[in-house]
Amino acid sequence: MSSERLIVQEVAPRDGLQIEPSWVETADKIALIDGVSALGFSRIEAGSFVSPKAVPMLRDGEAVFQGIARRAGVTYVALVPNLKGAQRALAAGADELNLVLSASQTHNRANMRMSCEQSLASFAEVVQLAKGQAVSLNGTVATTFGCPFEGRIDEGWVFELVQRYLALGMTGITLADTTGMANPRQVARIVRQVLELIPASALTLHFHNTRGLGLSNVLAAYEAGARRFDAALGGLGGCPFAPGASGNICTEDLVNLCAEIGVETGIDLQRLIELSRTLPALLGHDTPGQVAKAGRNCDLHPPPATAG
Amino acid sequence: MSSERLIVQEVAPRDGLQIEPSWVETADKIALIDGVSALGFSRIEAGSFVSPKAVPMLRDGEAVFQGIARRAGVTYVALVPNLKGAQRALAAGADELNLVLSASQTHNRANMRMSCEQSLASFAEVVQLAKGQAVSLNGTVATTFGCPFEGRIDEGWVFELVQRYLALGMTGITLADTTGMANPRQVARIVRQVLELIPASALTLHFHNTRGLGLSNVLAAYEAGARRFDAALGGLGGCPFAPGASGNICTEDLVNLCAEIGVETGIDLQRLIELSRTLPALLGHDTPGQVAKAGRNCDLHPPPATAG
Repeated sequence: MSSERLIVQEVAPRDGLQIEPSWVETADKIALIDGVSALGFSRIEAGSFVSPKAVPMLRDGEAVFQGIARRAGVTYVALVPNLKGAQRALAAGADELNLVLSASQTHNRANMRMSCEQSLASFAEVVQLAKGQAVSLNGTVATTFGCPFEGRIDEGWVFELVQRYLALGMTGITLADTTGMANPRQVARIVRQVLELIPASALTLHFHNTRGLGLSNVLAAYEAGARRFDAALGGLGGCPFAPGASGNICTEDLVNLCAEIGVETGIDLQRLIELSRTLPALLGHDTPGQVAKAGRNCDLHPPPATAG
Repeated sequence: MSSERLIVQEVAPRDGLQIEPSWVETADKIALIDGVSALGFSRIEAGSFVSPKAVPMLRDGEAVFQGIARRAGVTYVALVPNLKGAQRALAAGADELNLVLSASQTHNRANMRMSCEQSLASFAEVVQLAKGQAVSLNGTVATTFGCPFEGRIDEGWVFELVQRYLALGMTGITLADTTGMANPRQVARIVRQVLELIPASALTLHFHNTRGLGLSNVLAAYEAGARRFDAALGGLGGCPFAPGASGNICTEDLVNLCAEIGVETGIDLQRLIELSRTLPALLGHDTPGQVAKAGRNCDLHPPPATAG
């Protein structure tokens, strides 16, 4: 991997859509994933296999995974909370299972109805299930950078969770800023320490732009050595505690940043912008991303007639 | 100045309001400026003295400057395009005149109906007028980081304009990313070079968040040594070429960033958020800032009842 290359994992089909207020048809989800996979992405989080009661918007995970046009070289990831979700995801053909627990015990209980220990025990069952199958396992540490209930999270505890994931046999780790509380100095510090435990190729950073710091945190993580980032087309997603605030960092804003600073993503920015511009019609509302509104820097405008 | 201190110049009353579609009453402008000056700001761009035809929203500059409750220690800045504007601003009692030209000749002709040379010649008249008066002069180089008509701007030309401003006797320089085209690596490079010409105390950076990079650019400039930044409450402002995109970087988002990374601004964040939350009612629309929606990191939420 060149030192000036960054991998974007598209998560709009999962983290982007899950909070949408209106149902998105299975065919539209499939079209979105296929649209993304045509643009140069190597990784797409295509759905989740959680309880349909907890996340009704993603209850059609099986149909989505079975309906997409699989593209060679693209890893299709499924988020799973437990053994049952893992069984469903494997049956549906997911290439990778993304297991999630929160570093905050309070947040984990609120989201998963389990302590962190109970989550890890349930993940051990998933590891057993996955043995010998053509599937990789990624462990996400949610609320790594702060919890809306507990506030700051002890960094030593985050590193311990990373090591527990590694001991279970996970080949990838995601550090997630679930509700947009990270700041760039904290990100740089934590990324540097985690990269003493795992190589950059195994680490993903997941930022939300809830307080406007998403891309600043990407840059801090990138400068600290991280090379893989989650992002959602249009900046979809959101935070239940911040009505109206931004969601995930926006894919096209991230790809534009990379293009401007000379970091390769392998993604076609103009076609990405065009795909993002289809979202408001699909979802019935504006999206928080900026570059889909502003265009690329290289899209110049004619000067007004008075300029002659 | 401590190395971990940053000065925020509030520009909502000028760059924020000038593009608003509906008239804001003079009394409301005055209340906004007085509200800002109570929160710890040392510098406020309170209005402009340009042609009322060009910017009708700010045609009441005299009444605004004469109506505000001047607070000791606050510098009230007026943007002026030429000698006539400078005469009006001085009569109205501005503490500092901010003169603006665009590094892009095409943009300068479009905005000022003059070449850069003609702008500089007109500024020489302003310098003569200001001699012996208790007013300081700041020179802004608009479109420093890119022009929507010309694209990239030659950096050597930007440095030449800075030197021309200094030769004229300006004591402050602003580098402005007028339409949100800057990127953090470019910003760091240009700031480092300009800081070889002037001290950090004389340099202001003016960023727009048009493509989501505003705060990333602030951080890059800060790390390169810059210490003074323009920002607009609520992220007001905008760009005529990017309908719906963000405007100036958002003051409360910037102050929140500083608070989180331990850089002092002297500004009360919570009261700033409360002031920003009055803007939608004043202006009749939502504002792009994030922190006014999300709150501070330290504003914790009760866990849901299921978390027990």
